[in-house]
Amino acid sequence: MKPVRIGIAGLGTVGSGVARILVENKEDIRRHIGFPLELTRIATLDKSRFAPSGIDHLITSKLDSLLKDDIDIVVETIGGTTTAKTFIESALRQKAVVTANKALLAQYGMDLIKIARKHKTELAFEASVAGGIPIIRVLKEGLSSDEIISVKGIVNGTANFVLSRMLSEHQEFADALKFAQESGFAERDPSFDVDGIDSAHKAAIIALTAFGYPAKFSDVWYEGISKITYQDLKTAYDLDYKIKLIATVKKENDQLDIRVHPAMISSSDFLAKTDGVYNAITVRGKYSGKTTYVGKGAGSHPTANSIVADLMDIAKRIKYGGFGTVFPSGFDRLSDFKIKQKETLNLKYYLRFSAVDEPGVLSKISGILGENGISIHSMIQVGRSGNGFVPLIIMTHSALESSVQKALSKIDRLDVIAKPTVLIRIIDE
Amino acid sequence: MKPVRIGIAGLGTVGSGVARILVENKEDIRRHIGFPLELTRIATLDKSRFAPSGIDHLITSKLDSLLKDDIDIVVETIGGTTTAKTFIESALRQKAVVTANKALLAQYGMDLIKIARKHKTELAFEASVAGGIPIIRVLKEGLSSDEIISVKGIVNGTANFVLSRMLSEHQEFADALKFAQESGFAERDPSFDVDGIDSAHKAAIIALTAFGYPAKFSDVWYEGISKITYQDLKTAYDLDYKIKLIATVKKENDQLDIRVHPAMISSSDFLAKTDGVYNAITVRGKYSGKTTYVGKGAGSHPTANSIVADLMDIAKRIKYGGFGTVFPSGFDRLSDFKIKQKETLNLKYYLRFSAVDEPGVLSKISGILGENGISIHSMIQVGRSGNGFVPLIIMTHSALESSVQKALSKIDRLDVIAKPTVLIRIIDE
Repeated sequence: MKPVRIGIAGLGTVGSGVARILVENKEDIRRHIGFPLELTRIATLDKSRFAPSGIDHLITSKLDSLLKDDIDIVVETIGGTTTAKTFIESALRQKAVVTANKALLAQYGMDLIKIARKHKTELAFEASVAGGIPIIRVLKEGLSSDEIISVKGIVNGTANFVLSRMLSEHQEFADALKFAQESGFAERDPSFDVDGIDSAHKAAIIALTAFGYPAKFSDVWYEGISKITYQDLKTAYDLDYKIKLIATVKKENDQLDIRVHPAMISSSDFLAKTDGVYNAITVRGKYSGKTTYVGKGAGSHPTANSIVADLMDIAKRIKYGGFGTVFPSGFDRLSDFKIKQKETLNLKYYLRFSAVDEPGVLSKISGILGENGISIHSMIQVGRSGNGFVPLIIMTHSALESSVQKALSKIDRLDVIAKPTVLIRIIDE
Repeated sequence: MKPVRIGIAGLGTVGSGVARILVENKEDIRRHIGFPLELTRIATLDKSRFAPSGIDHLITSKLDSLLKDDIDIVVETIGGTTTAKTFIESALRQKAVVTANKALLAQYGMDLIKIARKHKTELAFEASVAGGIPIIRVLKEGLSSDEIISVKGIVNGTANFVLSRMLSEHQEFADALKFAQESGFAERDPSFDVDGIDSAHKAAIIALTAFGYPAKFSDVWYEGISKITYQDLKTAYDLDYKIKLIATVKKENDQLDIRVHPAMISSSDFLAKTDGVYNAITVRGKYSGKTTYVGKGAGSHPTANSIVADLMDIAKRIKYGGFGTVFPSGFDRLSDFKIKQKETLNLKYYLRFSAVDEPGVLSKISGILGENGISIHSMIQVGRSGNGFVPLIIMTHSALESSVQKALSKIDRLDVIAKPTVLIRIIDE
């Protein structure tokens, strides 16, 4: 059988990883799908850095040449939301596109899917969430028969590495982050990862895949991990919890609850057991129950491997039939959600107050909490900090987020409070 | 679009679960795949027990009626290897079959696949391994681009429940098993689960799916968990290990290593962190790295859900094209393995000797180990048992299984050894 022809846009770590797998695994892939995938052309402006050997003759600087008829599927690894967007839009009018571009998908995912539908082509993005874990395929196909209730996960390996390191090495955030940067697990500008932006992108993609909801990045509220201290992690640990940066996408009647924030999770939960650069995602389905998927979230090879799996999948439909019929199935299911407002959340909270060490402080704090209908589950005072104030930790019963925020804004204005209160939400289901 | 019509053979817990999902989720399924799946007929001899309401008119006692032209896909939930085999063979000559029949697949899987290929139909069996976890789909598609190196897992929830319970409740095997039976987590005759037979069936199915090797049940050597004591679990735990019943399917050059046995695994491994009735499977791929899949291994709903996912998948190919083209891709990849012989394994071992409490015993045991080229990593004597002998535990460095067996058969004949030595293999990669 004639090959299906692949073009790659961009030749960074991921693009070159895809090229390498297509070359190295060519025969295995052929035996697997019954025909070859042929790497036909690579468009890049900088061919010096990553090109695997033996493919020099395939390299061009002309991005548009990938739109020609001699390419059946295009892999976009340019990144960003400018050139990549224009390129994907043009390509989708003629052929299938595979991408791992989270920022683009989180912003324009549904728009791109609409172009693909209109022109009867396909857009695939397995590699955009949790690198080596085929979570998109699981949501789209493996659990497609089920009514998905929630998807929760650790979807950023850098943030998870930093939190794990803080706990295991008794470090503060800045030190653990510095170590992560020195070890190559964090970027020089780490805000994307540690502030929750990257996780929020992935939450939007999960909402699209699991619930058919065209969530945008702006629909997702997020908080990062920079305010978490070693003391928080240690206190949580002593209470049989771990603190993880969790992306939640959850159906609640006609509302979709999409958010990213540091959360306390029972240590018996698989997400709590996932340390270091690993990602883990737990899907709860009406019939399938709770299933969890764990693997490395990033890296050239796992990401490239997921892209090639998408290529094989699409190529089979090109050859055997069914090409262009996949989006209606994967995404038409439910799309009439409202986004749940943060203020309406009803959760348990861990609150760390930085209180001046003098009598009556607890009574003032608990008074304000009580006025706002927040009842206290337990209280821990963890020694003195030496700075003249003491960390006072209060765990609440379930309370309305808006009430908690109202109480905190009042408490933080008290003279006896030295620094803004740190709030960590508890996920206990 | 016209519906794809489904027939179910057998109406036990799984068959009725499938019927229930097809009825309850009908509209969701239609929105997901673009056309309806219509439950058309159910063949059962005993319709009294599990039938969901409202489908009485679909029930017949004539199994053959499912072979008629008005059924597009048949679900086999009869079980066993007699009637089920004949029925599936006939059905596959005309249409797709979905089954969760492990015993049948482990014995005749490749034969059935050949019938499907010859007649251009399909056989699907997602539900046969690890109930609610879409592991077959992950191996066949999500990681199809990768070179799979090994698949290891806890694939029997009953055995895992018993081992977890023994450790957490300080119980011996018989007591934990009795509790499992009383709680509905073990059958009255538990041998299938605790002796490793069920896990061996699943290992054969994994070999077929991940490596295209037509493994049969008889290719898999297996050992169960009945000889494990609380003391073994506790000692392992103190050494930072857990003991789990592990199915291994692993490529080693041109050999395929397929086995099921209790194994000591580092407590940092996800398999070690999986307790109770949960299943967990770790796949190691050249590019994707290590990914782990966790979920409930059994139960009517998770199993039925996996069957319906297979139905949706096949139905899409029937409607949109590509029907009958899936087997060549999933299974033609590699099939020229030799089965690795047990004697040639090179592992580390945990050995528990039941030695008479008198001087010179250790010297005799270590002498025989030394003669057989087995070197000792560490030795632990855990108090006296009160029966006049002491449990003596030796952890070895890597050694050849044949040498270990030879040494043990000599040691177990010593006067100072009261009971056969218990051997637990260590999996440390």
